[in-house]
Amino acid sequence: HENVSETPDSLLRENDRHAGFSTSRDLKHLEGLPPVHPQMRARFESMIRAAQDSICKALEEADGSGKNFHEDAWIREADGGGGISKVLQQGNVFEKAGVNVSVVYGTMPPEALQAASPGAVARNAGYGGGERVPFFAAGISSVIHPWNPHVPTMHFNYRYFETERGMWWMGGGTDLTPSYLYESDARHFHGVLKSVCDRHDSTYYTRFKKWCDEYFLIRHRGERRGIGGIFFDDLNDRPAEEIFNFSTDMANHVVDAYVPIVERRKHTPYTDEQKRWQQLRRGRYVEFNLVYDRGTVFGLKTGGRIESILMSLPLTARWEYDHQPAEGTPEWDLLDACKHPREWL
Amino acid sequence: HENVSETPDSLLRENDRHAGFSTSRDLKHLEGLPPVHPQMRARFESMIRAAQDSICKALEEADGSGKNFHEDAWIREADGGGGISKVLQQGNVFEKAGVNVSVVYGTMPPEALQAASPGAVARNAGYGGGERVPFFAAGISSVIHPWNPHVPTMHFNYRYFETERGMWWMGGGTDLTPSYLYESDARHFHGVLKSVCDRHDSTYYTRFKKWCDEYFLIRHRGERRGIGGIFFDDLNDRPAEEIFNFSTDMANHVVDAYVPIVERRKHTPYTDEQKRWQQLRRGRYVEFNLVYDRGTVFGLKTGGRIESILMSLPLTARWEYDHQPAEGTPEWDLLDACKHPREWL
Repeated sequence: HENVSETPDSLLRENDRHAGFSTSRDLKHLEGLPPVHPQMRARFESMIRAAQDSICKALEEADGSGKNFHEDAWIREADGGGGISKVLQQGNVFEKAGVNVSVVYGTMPPEALQAASPGAVARNAGYGGGERVPFFAAGISSVIHPWNPHVPTMHFNYRYFETERGMWWMGGGTDLTPSYLYESDARHFHGVLKSVCDRHDSTYYTRFKKWCDEYFLIRHRGERRGIGGIFFDDLNDRPAEEIFNFSTDMANHVVDAYVPIVERRKHTPYTDEQKRWQQLRRGRYVEFNLVYDRGTVFGLKTGGRIESILMSLPLTARWEYDHQPAEGTPEWDLLDACKHPREWL
Repeated sequence: HENVSETPDSLLRENDRHAGFSTSRDLKHLEGLPPVHPQMRARFESMIRAAQDSICKALEEADGSGKNFHEDAWIREADGGGGISKVLQQGNVFEKAGVNVSVVYGTMPPEALQAASPGAVARNAGYGGGERVPFFAAGISSVIHPWNPHVPTMHFNYRYFETERGMWWMGGGTDLTPSYLYESDARHFHGVLKSVCDRHDSTYYTRFKKWCDEYFLIRHRGERRGIGGIFFDDLNDRPAEEIFNFSTDMANHVVDAYVPIVERRKHTPYTDEQKRWQQLRRGRYVEFNLVYDRGTVFGLKTGGRIESILMSLPLTARWEYDHQPAEGTPEWDLLDACKHPREWL
């Protein structure tokens, strides 16, 4: 990964950039797979880069420190592809906020395909044992960790995958990780997600809310990392166009879902004990991301850019031996919501 | 895992406790596998429990806070087995020090056998796809994280495994993770390990020092978590007796290898910047343990007691985006030693 001083107009290989000439168009589609637009690679890149810019701008305003996101652009000279990492560290409101886009032409070992999409493994069964699978992936990924324990951490990710054998799928999600539970915040966040979902498919919110609760489970703890949102993966049950429109709409509503909560809580006073509890929850966040998160595992196994992948980790985290909040406390209530997912709407 | 108020005399199943009557004796040994003493389970338990007590006592003295290790004993009512976790948190010298023993009767999925011992997978090839493998494991495991960035973190682990099909092996190691490199400390630490090794096999130190450098590699960073020590796994190339004696000798010299370094550095003044660097190195420690460490992965996959397994994590850790120490600084020197393992003797 070579850093470049000028951010390129496109991170795609030359062939994938122009109208009417795209690798996507040449896909030899697997039987029964819905069609994908010939310029999906270019269109997905445009979408995530526009989302990156507008979301960073909104977060800079909410931060109010006058600090801007620091931008690193990098390319992979040999293979094509690259990425743009934007980080705001130690602002007024945000301890560490990162918004990445990346465009990757690579090959993955079968276990990385498993991490990327369990469903794709079966559909790519033609690949022999141990054979590496060539793929294209474009995605936006973000984690926002605030200082104040009353302001929740937020994560979102939207991504488009193709394998060389004609498989494609999209995945993504937006989810919230509070240290303290404000039901009104949970309702606002889930409400925005549901209203976007409902514009695309009336079954999406219910299905993807449940998927999110299942996905973000820290299995060894029997608790989720937060109070969820939506999550979907391996989605290709309709024309790519429709899932692209849904992903675009979701990415474009991250700010509406999150920033009003930041504004509402960013001046809430907090104690050292509350900060300590937040740090313990950050430790759980690290456990999820390093042990279970598909994107992280995928990135580490396919030789991704480490600093971009691990930007999701908090600035600071804490592990105490056998810490248990007392029953009935706000800390206990949050943990209860992580153990027993609730319906917010 | 039920906590018990009285620490049991033995964590073994009744049948395994008494002379002349041990599951080990009934092992239907695989061809070519050296013999194991019929009371190896009981003898290994005695050894690790004695080591736990004496090491904790020495660490309490070095800590000098008057705090004692807090002890939690737990058993598994249904399956037999249990453990004793000892933790000293927020002492004078030690931020978080844990010394665990555990005795486990369990079954592991094939991927956990892989995590426990890659060699054992081949030798247990008789197990069908997906079939769980019954096993016995006894071990001592410890991580000591001091406050002062000039005092290194130390880890050791010695363990004995059997599978029901007659496989046995031992593994273990002792290694050092400084934030700042003092060559005299590295020489002292490696020197004690080598002198113990040399009493048992003149090839051990060289082989196990190299194995340690390979094992503690944080692959996605291309750096080790520290400056190593010794590590061995899946060892059963001679009578169990001999490897047991070696493991015992190693466990009994952990204090000699480590405590003199603690005494030498515990009053060294340090700056906020040095503390911050230590916290970044602690973040790397977390990355290694959660992504690569066999014991951690094994414990998480076999339903081990989470608080005991994750006691290895530091009280606090830090991740900054793209932190790079300037060339020629002490931080750079440490990192260089983690990237390019050195010979200390």
